[in-house]
Amino acid sequence: MNVVRNLVVAQSGGPTPVINSSLRGIIESARGFDAIGTVYGARHGIEGVLKEELLDLSAQSAEEVALLRFTPAAGSIGTCRYKLRPNQTEDFERAIEVFRAHQIGYLLYIGGNDSMDTADKIARLAHERGLDLVAVGVPKTIDNDVGDSEFKLIDHTPGYGSVARYWMHKVQTANEENAGSCPADPVLVMQAMGRKIGFIPAAARLADPEREMPLQIYLAESPCSLSQLADRVNDQLRCSGRCVVVISEGFDVGDLGEVKDSFGHTSFGSNKLTVGQAVVNYLNQIGLPCKGAARGNVPGTDQRHSMVYASAVDLDEAYRVGQKAVELAAGGQSGFMATILREPGSIYSIRYEKTPLAEVANSERTFPVKWITPSGCDVTDEFVRYAKPLVGSDMITLPTIDGRQRMTRFAPIFAEQKLSKYIPQADRK
Amino acid sequence: MNVVRNLVVAQSGGPTPVINSSLRGIIESARGFDAIGTVYGARHGIEGVLKEELLDLSAQSAEEVALLRFTPAAGSIGTCRYKLRPNQTEDFERAIEVFRAHQIGYLLYIGGNDSMDTADKIARLAHERGLDLVAVGVPKTIDNDVGDSEFKLIDHTPGYGSVARYWMHKVQTANEENAGSCPADPVLVMQAMGRKIGFIPAAARLADPEREMPLQIYLAESPCSLSQLADRVNDQLRCSGRCVVVISEGFDVGDLGEVKDSFGHTSFGSNKLTVGQAVVNYLNQIGLPCKGAARGNVPGTDQRHSMVYASAVDLDEAYRVGQKAVELAAGGQSGFMATILREPGSIYSIRYEKTPLAEVANSERTFPVKWITPSGCDVTDEFVRYAKPLVGSDMITLPTIDGRQRMTRFAPIFAEQKLSKYIPQADRK
Repeated sequence: MNVVRNLVVAQSGGPTPVINSSLRGIIESARGFDAIGTVYGARHGIEGVLKEELLDLSAQSAEEVALLRFTPAAGSIGTCRYKLRPNQTEDFERAIEVFRAHQIGYLLYIGGNDSMDTADKIARLAHERGLDLVAVGVPKTIDNDVGDSEFKLIDHTPGYGSVARYWMHKVQTANEENAGSCPADPVLVMQAMGRKIGFIPAAARLADPEREMPLQIYLAESPCSLSQLADRVNDQLRCSGRCVVVISEGFDVGDLGEVKDSFGHTSFGSNKLTVGQAVVNYLNQIGLPCKGAARGNVPGTDQRHSMVYASAVDLDEAYRVGQKAVELAAGGQSGFMATILREPGSIYSIRYEKTPLAEVANSERTFPVKWITPSGCDVTDEFVRYAKPLVGSDMITLPTIDGRQRMTRFAPIFAEQKLSKYIPQADRK
Repeated sequence: MNVVRNLVVAQSGGPTPVINSSLRGIIESARGFDAIGTVYGARHGIEGVLKEELLDLSAQSAEEVALLRFTPAAGSIGTCRYKLRPNQTEDFERAIEVFRAHQIGYLLYIGGNDSMDTADKIARLAHERGLDLVAVGVPKTIDNDVGDSEFKLIDHTPGYGSVARYWMHKVQTANEENAGSCPADPVLVMQAMGRKIGFIPAAARLADPEREMPLQIYLAESPCSLSQLADRVNDQLRCSGRCVVVISEGFDVGDLGEVKDSFGHTSFGSNKLTVGQAVVNYLNQIGLPCKGAARGNVPGTDQRHSMVYASAVDLDEAYRVGQKAVELAAGGQSGFMATILREPGSIYSIRYEKTPLAEVANSERTFPVKWITPSGCDVTDEFVRYAKPLVGSDMITLPTIDGRQRMTRFAPIFAEQKLSKYIPQADRK
């Protein structure tokens, strides 16, 4: 069967500094397979599929594609948080219709657990409808929450190494700030992403593996009352004169005036109150045992789009995972996610494998309890050994022109629209 | 008079990524003057003088001193926000006593307007008490608020170029985030420092001099109601589908539960509510004209200690200003601040000069009204021409070891304490 069919790549959920490296891996690798025709990028993920907005990535210059390595977040083809619920049958049928209209034989879905589930469902429906669609997942998330808790489906997700590196650097420089300014600002609270899973705040420990800083790390998985937290911080102040606190956005401090996204997840960046602010307010309200006041930083999305802190290891792995997914797709292996598995032994070494989408979709990773220290506000050396190789060694060098970063700018070349207009079901009034 | 006298350098106020470059300029240049003996760093600024905590900087290794270039914030010798009020006569007398005990002939004070005033007062009192003390100021602030509004006393302050570069990069990558994630997160609000002066938020324009982004910039100097701000943002959403907002921490949005420092300045990082959060809450409460919600980032102190974004121009100038101050001190020119003046013409060129401390202390810089556009939410090309040369061209290369930044670590070698213990007046119960 020498049929040439086209490929659609779509992204879903929050971006990372390396999501575009997976995209680049897909675009560049697809050129090597005769069976793959045009590579389209769904504009804003599944929304772009439903709206038949398919950016022609094969028509873009090699330079712009290569620059994806240094272009953070998802501005190039776009992402979304559109939830394809099982009862949205019109949406599912529309997706199949769009794929049929554009001779799409391959769907590569870059995302987290929810996305793997969506990709799996679409592939099954396509099969039912007699459309030969190969669906392959490409893992992506800064939270490192894709897969299982035993690291057997996947060792770590592309995106995590870079945000871990971000926190390594942020805590190093914040410690200089706190050490210098402690007579006025003895407590510096920094809020990390990751909702209910603590891999991101845990990465703060990479800044100080020898435990020389007055650093306290609070994961959502290791809850305590604000009063207990304040006791620990104040003890640190009495002994060190200062304290750097890294806390998860999902740490339970009571009501935050929560705003939910379409997946029902809390949008911590949109809530009425942040955890960081709640902690600062509580500490200042009960009073510190020294002069000065607590202050807080809430970097928010910055941690998922600060290109300069991207891990070179993460960038390379994200690219390779994209390649692996194309390889699986070209081989007709539908229903799998490309994955990264760590080889045993003390020297960091990985291999690229595949794992069934359905298995990923039904699994839920948690932060290993044994990696939280008995104190409840630190993580163990075992975590450091796990995370350290992922952040890489050297800083990457960003291409700049006249001081500013040079980032991918795709030409707005879209596939011709062949179907009638369509409003995604969840977007209808 | 071949008398060798020692030098004390002290820092005051918030740090910058380049404050340590001025410190380095002072330490390295002082070696070249026979009249200058030991260089001491007052631990945490004037507090260290009062407590007789003088770190011996001449005893530190050349390598650690050189690494000050890449060490942000003030962790190496420390800063403070201790206000020396005119009626704190005991404090003033104590400072003179400490200087006398350690044969201090030179006081170099790195800080903003308040610091120049303090340095001036100490020098005058020393003169009255028969102590031959040469006091020289070294300008430092990220806000760029030192000096006059006509840029005749100083063109710009070391520290500003680096935070301007920070915002240039932050807005560039935030725009990728917003472009990619706008179906769920159409508005991204970022809060910039600078209290009542708008040079920092204005620097966001450097990310987009051609005005291609849906970027709105709100300075404290260009106030409007939250309702007016929301109208502008919502108009942008209707026309662009997304909006990036950069707003000053000092923009008036009503009560923030303010916390004041000892200078009576608002500590925006310690307030109960941030401006960024207030704007996000308002926008989400009245509702956006599209799906999704507004979200916010409050990077806080990060903008003054993110070394990787330091401007090479700023680093070099900060160093040279430190050198210039030592030159003035060695020449016996007490009562001056080293300054940077821009040469006329379109090609960026500066010279290092001096200006009387008293004149700086009594001046107040404001952001030029003519640099705010009539729309009230942008700055002009003239501002861009002013600020652009300050951010430099290439990214700097940070020294790293095993992935982490290698920063200055001074040995705790202090001058022997010769006086009785002293509690600074404002610190007494």
